[in-house]
Amino acid sequence: MKKAFSHLDDTGAAAMVDVGAKPDQKRVAVATGELRCTPATIRLLKKQALPKGDVLACARVAGIMAAKKTGELIPLCHPLMLDKVSVDFAVKRDRIVITAEARLTGKTGVEMEALTAVSVAALTLYDMMKAVDKAMVIGEVRVISKTKI
Amino acid sequence: MKKAFSHLDDTGAAAMVDVGAKPDQKRVAVATGELRCTPATIRLLKKQALPKGDVLACARVAGIMAAKKTGELIPLCHPLMLDKVSVDFAVKRDRIVITAEARLTGKTGVEMEALTAVSVAALTLYDMMKAVDKAMVIGEVRVISKTKI
Amino acid sequence: MKKAFSHLDDTGAAAMVDVGAKPDQKRVAVATGELRCTPATIRLLKKQALPKGDVLACARVAGIMAAKKTGELIPLCHPLMLDKVSVDFAVKRDRIVITAEARLTGKTGVEMEALTAVSVAALTLYDMMKAVDKAMVIGEVRVISKTKI
Amino acid sequence: MKKAFSHLDDTGAAAMVDVGAKPDQKRVAVATGELRCTPATIRLLKKQALPKGDVLACARVAGIMAAKKTGELIPLCHPLMLDKVSVDFAVKRDRIVITAEARLTGKTGVEMEALTAVSVAALTLYDMMKAVDKAMVIGEVRVISKTKI
Amino acid sequence: MKKAFSHLDDTGAAAMVDVGAKPDQKRVAVATGELRCTPATIRLLKKQALPKGDVLACARVAGIMAAKKTGELIPLCHPLMLDKVSVDFAVKRDRIVITAEARLTGKTGVEMEALTAVSVAALTLYDMMKAVDKAMVIGEVRVISKTKI
Amino acid sequence: MKKAFSHLDDTGAAAMVDVGAKPDQKRVAVATGELRCTPATIRLLKKQALPKGDVLACARVAGIMAAKKTGELIPLCHPLMLDKVSVDFAVKRDRIVITAEARLTGKTGVEMEALTAVSVAALTLYDMMKAVDKAMVIGEVRVISKTKI
Repeated sequence: MKKAFSHLDDTGAAAMVDVGAKPDQKRVAVATGELRCTPATIRLLKKQALPKGDVLACARVAGIMAAKKTGELIPLCHPLMLDKVSVDFAVKRDRIVITAEARLTGKTGVEMEALTAVSVAALTLYDMMKAVDKAMVIGEVRVISKTKI
Repeated sequence: MKKAFSHLDDTGAAAMVDVGAKPDQKRVAVATGELRCTPATIRLLKKQALPKGDVLACARVAGIMAAKKTGELIPLCHPLMLDKVSVDFAVKRDRIVITAEARLTGKTGVEMEALTAVSVAALTLYDMMKAVDKAMVIGEVRVISKTKI
Repeated sequence: MKKAFSHLDDTGAAAMVDVGAKPDQKRVAVATGELRCTPATIRLLKKQALPKGDVLACARVAGIMAAKKTGELIPLCHPLMLDKVSVDFAVKRDRIVITAEARLTGKTGVEMEALTAVSVAALTLYDMMKAVDKAMVIGEVRVISKTKI
Repeated sequence: MKKAFSHLDDTGAAAMVDVGAKPDQKRVAVATGELRCTPATIRLLKKQALPKGDVLACARVAGIMAAKKTGELIPLCHPLMLDKVSVDFAVKRDRIVITAEARLTGKTGVEMEALTAVSVAALTLYDMMKAVDKAMVIGEVRVISKTKI
Repeated sequence: MKKAFSHLDDTGAAAMVDVGAKPDQKRVAVATGELRCTPATIRLLKKQALPKGDVLACARVAGIMAAKKTGELIPLCHPLMLDKVSVDFAVKRDRIVITAEARLTGKTGVEMEALTAVSVAALTLYDMMKAVDKAMVIGEVRVISKTKI
Repeated sequence: MKKAFSHLDDTGAAAMVDVGAKPDQKRVAVATGELRCTPATIRLLKKQALPKGDVLACARVAGIMAAKKTGELIPLCHPLMLDKVSVDFAVKRDRIVITAEARLTGKTGVEMEALTAVSVAALTLYDMMKAVDKAMVIGEVRVISKTKI
């Protein structure tokens, strides 16, 4: 079987893939990514904003809300009724690692939803920390598991 | 002067920074990022979808539209009337490099808008190419210039 | 059984509740609320804007559209494909009473959708009447019935 | 049986029709429309922007994304989880003909989604071509087929 | 001077036009369009839904709200802070004529906002009347005046 | 001078008020409201979710984001570029009091933005606490100050 870009028709035009014939299945995807910063920024974060500050809570909410908007942001993604989204953080010496999980009972995989949650959570952390660190980098955004039952 | 997280008040609560006292200035920000994939995926992209296919055009549109939604995605970003957004791509041997520029005549920097355009363009490429490559990674998303006049 | 906040995990982090294991059921929720104003405002409303004016129609449409946006406004609400939303008004001597009903065939209750419809209908009435009454109050917003079949 | 406006109740108030009792069926709707312009504009489009330019790709993406927003734009439309949307163009001597198809496994017809895709694709073409032609007209927007299985 | 598509750069890539150097001016645009239907549908509309029904009010609200979303629907439109939007209807023998006006103090014309208001008001009328008339057509959507002071 | 509903024209049709002739001024509005619940719910909230849980942070973020969406929710509100929004909570014996402040340099008052922030923050609290208390009421939502400089 020849590999092909599923969102392009024979003329190269973009279209949403027809998922009408697919069965409803339970689907789970987990994605991760990280915001890299200086150790000084992490120390400041721990001192000023953890645990009482809203930094992580704010980024978590932004990531969850963004997952629900995936079909609005990514042109060829289907609108989905997600069963669940969660976003978690691990604060390391020189980075914050973000993990997001999306769950659906439906016809398409939900890795784009998990990736979108990670990306927007990372952007939100960037926004809240940019006053103290001008050289942060968002990276390693990828899917780490995708299953269906 | 002591560095501080500008979006947190004394109690650690999140709030939008008051920009009411700032002057309107011309502001430009440029951000980049990349979607890393296999050389085989790039070869397939070049053969099937470039130049006639809609892949890059679709990601460009998604990035531009996302820049305009930044204030809706990132909780503490201000809604802005952007003067301009553009998104460009450089297709390399094993990655696509994305560059986005945002311009504003206003009171706040626009690096979040440029970063959001890059992130959503990368997610859109990921979505359109994921049928042929399951191990792509979005990375090196960062600001490369930020100026005001 | 110990009562608990369903949207918080063991660490206190917010997450959408996983509804994947719940059966699809018919669900109906009704909510009410009121906009309190002066009797003079109500008299003016009846004279200038009822029945021909668009005040109630405009608030009804706003409430219905807001119910469809509930999952976008309330961070941990699930996106839903509502079967029906309706919004009605009773104009009293010194207040307008708003009632909204939401219906769903799905996995979660729809009281948040009914409450959101009431709240945004009330805010819309407030907006349209604020030029003549500066001291209005939105109150008594609550669920009056919630059923599933 | 007397014909009636399905979105109005006995008092003339607007409401979403209750679709809760309807079965899930496969539904397809196709709509068309056109943007009329001068032959000179079409010649310029073919020379400057076809095939390599992003004009048609941009309008296609806008149409697809708008179809997914139909329930947000049209007050009494139900939010839907579309299975598929596609938008195509035929460039004629003095007009661009737009065709959109929407597919759903669900409880309501999807002609509004197909019509919205056509309308927003036409508006996007208008926007991108208005610098060279001030007298374009969008017309003949209608449903050409609607089926359910 | 050679005419050119303002939203395409030298390589044919789409981008928002940079309006940063333009002065703020008062701008007004008026657009019209029509929904054509059978005389029987118009008679039914007049009998069942005018003046007390919400049909026209609902379409008016939808058009006004859509004008505010223009920058979100049309990929290369700038987000704008409109000063005013209004939508009006003239019910004729076999059609409803829709007129929308948009006003802005800003840097770009607002014809796309007026056209979007007309289009979405027409789609809303279509949605509310489609149960009684399956062959309606939206047409003659165009700008009738565009001025700046 | 005769009082009138500013959003209705002579025929009773709704329209956005034209603010084009108004000067840009600094404007501040503060609104409050409350979510009433049982003292047992408040005790549970203090024990399980304060200070470490995300309940208040989540409601604060939802309120701030909703303020930015006011022009999208309330049909005749103008889209605004808010300078600042903040949302605060006071946890009392049997209620949570919510206060929101909105600031703008612009042409219209921002009391609707402050009221919307309060309403959506209250709805979010309701959503997160509804598993433990079925009889909560949102009330006393009103403007407590509105100034311009």
